[in-house]
Amino acid sequence: MLNPEYIGFFAAILTTSAFLPQAFKIWKTQSADGLSLTMYLVMGTGTSCWLIYGVLIQSPSIIVANSVSISIIIFIITFIVRSKK
Amino acid sequence: MLNPEYIGFFAAILTTSAFLPQAFKIWKTQSADGLSLTMYLVMGTGTSCWLIYGVLIQSPSIIVANSVSISIIIFIITFIVRSKK
Repeated sequence: MLNPEYIGFFAAILTTSAFLPQAFKIWKTQSADGLSLTMYLVMGTGTSCWLIYGVLIQSPSIIVANSVSISIIIFIITFIVRSKK
Repeated sequence: MLNPEYIGFFAAILTTSAFLPQAFKIWKTQSADGLSLTMYLVMGTGTSCWLIYGVLIQSPSIIVANSVSISIIIFIITFIVRSKK
């Protein structure tokens, strides 16, 4: 039987990488114009809840995926807040 | 002990709703200009893998969250492909 964690980690790589182009663009242009703070705050809160869920059901792939996503989302939120000043 | 599924479903509502403003905007303007097809294809593939993972570990909140997300992502991809014609 295939270990579900293999599929989980593959899924984690894909859904986490979907955020990367946005993060790179912000880093390159040093600007977060046009991005919705509300969307990233909702996404960040949701991702934090998935992390707690992963810890509770002891799922390694959910824990890793959401820890990485939270780091990227915090990076994006920091830039959005800075550029609003 | 708190049932992890409560946190899972709360997380599901938040991370799924983060996609909704984009879907509404596409519906209202009938345009998907500026959206990255690659990003949504990667996100769609990743979300499909999370769905398989959810079925394998028998997690109701992961199954529901990713089924809803896949529907929204397919809707967005359909508009991006149509607007490229």
